[in-house]
Amino acid sequence: MTTISIKSYPVRREHAGHVNKGPKLNLKSGYVDLSHGSGGRAMAQLIDQLFLENFDNEWLSQKNDQAMIAVSTGRMVVTTDAHVISPLFFPGGDIGSLSVNGTINDIVMSGAKPLYLSASFILEEGLRLSDLQKIVISMANAARDANVAIVAGDTKVVERGKGDGVFITTTGIGFVPEGVNISGSNAKPGDCILINGYLGDHGVAIMAQRNNLKFSTDIQSDTAGLHDLVMKMVEAVPGIHCLRDPTRGGLATTLNELAIQSKAGFFIDESCIPVRVEVASACELLGLDPLYVANEGKLVAICASDDAKTLLEVMRSHPLGRHSAIIGEVTADPRQLVQLRTRLGGMRIVDWLVGEQLPRIC
Amino acid sequence: MTTISIKSYPVRREHAGHVNKGPKLNLKSGYVDLSHGSGGRAMAQLIDQLFLENFDNEWLSQKNDQAMIAVSTGRMVVTTDAHVISPLFFPGGDIGSLSVNGTINDIVMSGAKPLYLSASFILEEGLRLSDLQKIVISMANAARDANVAIVAGDTKVVERGKGDGVFITTTGIGFVPEGVNISGSNAKPGDCILINGYLGDHGVAIMAQRNNLKFSTDIQSDTAGLHDLVMKMVEAVPGIHCLRDPTRGGLATTLNELAIQSKAGFFIDESCIPVRVEVASACELLGLDPLYVANEGKLVAICASDDAKTLLEVMRSHPLGRHSAIIGEVTADPRQLVQLRTRLGGMRIVDWLVGEQLPRIC
Repeated sequence: MTTISIKSYPVRREHAGHVNKGPKLNLKSGYVDLSHGSGGRAMAQLIDQLFLENFDNEWLSQKNDQAMIAVSTGRMVVTTDAHVISPLFFPGGDIGSLSVNGTINDIVMSGAKPLYLSASFILEEGLRLSDLQKIVISMANAARDANVAIVAGDTKVVERGKGDGVFITTTGIGFVPEGVNISGSNAKPGDCILINGYLGDHGVAIMAQRNNLKFSTDIQSDTAGLHDLVMKMVEAVPGIHCLRDPTRGGLATTLNELAIQSKAGFFIDESCIPVRVEVASACELLGLDPLYVANEGKLVAICASDDAKTLLEVMRSHPLGRHSAIIGEVTADPRQLVQLRTRLGGMRIVDWLVGEQLPRIC
Repeated sequence: MTTISIKSYPVRREHAGHVNKGPKLNLKSGYVDLSHGSGGRAMAQLIDQLFLENFDNEWLSQKNDQAMIAVSTGRMVVTTDAHVISPLFFPGGDIGSLSVNGTINDIVMSGAKPLYLSASFILEEGLRLSDLQKIVISMANAARDANVAIVAGDTKVVERGKGDGVFITTTGIGFVPEGVNISGSNAKPGDCILINGYLGDHGVAIMAQRNNLKFSTDIQSDTAGLHDLVMKMVEAVPGIHCLRDPTRGGLATTLNELAIQSKAGFFIDESCIPVRVEVASACELLGLDPLYVANEGKLVAICASDDAKTLLEVMRSHPLGRHSAIIGEVTADPRQLVQLRTRLGGMRIVDWLVGEQLPRIC
């Protein structure tokens, strides 16, 4: 089995003993073919000229089948995500930035500092090398922004019709600072529930692409790494109880998960939940509920009510939290229900998503 | 984004407040559909009743979006691999055992003890749940054999015709004991090169399945976790210089990689390289060279010549090394060539694999 670290830098040479890197990949007009997954010369070129060129760091250049990392005593977090989003490129991002940001966000929701990523690629024969290059550059930029190193990787190629362009699985590793103890099971009755901005942008941006709907305003995916926002939140309120990113399944799913983990009820107020007018309109058109639509740059934070004002201020002062709001509170409810007060003043239960709402949204 | 740890154990409940796990998955005659990747109720059922049921451990039951692990100061190794093998089931194993063993092997080739795995699944709509169950059980068994916990995961579903049954990416984490320093760059002129048994079994087993060739003897994949063998090798010879598993691209590719990393030449003797008669015949039939055929339970070890006899004995006394052999030696060669003395006494250069030999072999 192969990691980028490995099959990577085997500098090509000729029989005469000259060292060279072999012919250049045709990144402008070439395509992925099965030889790029063979373990041989073509794969080494792909890894060398595309992945290493962009992800280069001290671990990859060790050229072993595994990256070796010095660690200190403490608490490490690990998370993984497969990314199969369609289309590969969308307003606000692409599968590359998404696959890095998504895993970074899962790491930082524990209060951890993200440090290392692995990335494995399943490429479909016929993918344009220029598209793959854009995606890889996008990953490299997202990783650089978060000061995270992509230390190991793998590349496989499947025949045309057995994949869909590219699937990317990223696995992230981070370390939790002393004194931080954030978990989905820590919400307490009386706690406040906060969100860092508008809901539903990602899901609607993707659906609009797929259906070629013409919106008067371009809605962009909110895909973003939340590492810096969370760091500032944890600095200001080290005792934050819960953090979670409401991705697939949306806010509704995240709150239902947290309610069960914390054995509490949640009460949210529709009039406090930030949703863009364009997103609300699009959701109406598509028959979607913004509470169930995926986000890729949002987080739910739960903290003691005494800390809520401080936390809200810190969030609002950050570029990724300008539209933050307190949207509800935790209740003592043995039924562990998520309840919503509607704009009209009625109450309804916000249940788990049933069936499939938005396939391949991430 | 989702890890098994999370979306996992959200115990289903009804509005009345009763807690239940929802309807049972139809593991006997059901199929994967898009709702199993939705983030909603169907996905939670799949994760709860299939993945958690088989992978259950303290990390998954924390139910957070990331697994938290206590670590001590030392050297950690990380490796990742996507598995796209076709067919999913083959003589000697399946994509499940392969995806666990393959990543465990990459970890142990550093001399590290493997401890944690993540697993992400890309499922094609229409996959039989019974097949997925077999694969998951096979993974659980392979992980249990190596005393490794699958601590995080993810599940995505793509439409029919956009995948191929199931792709599995595993990422592995291990820790290297004090005093062990194994790297592809450590081979020294005069060192001995050892292999732990017959070459080419895996590749030929897969090709035979694909082509429906009838061999007089069933060749089985050699897929196996090499953790125990390596542990015993390192105990006996802590100063092993290099270890690497010759998977995709075979022994030829692995030796070429190591030659470049170590800036040395390699000399191997064809008559010493263990290849089963059936595999040699099949390779002749298929136009393959066993030196380039993939293995999934083999390792190349390089050690000082003084240690070679001890190492060989330890390897031969292990069930996964009964047919171990010393196959050659490291030479001082500025050209970094891998050279083979053929059975007929001639010499030839063993170059990198060019083009695609065996697509989707792992």
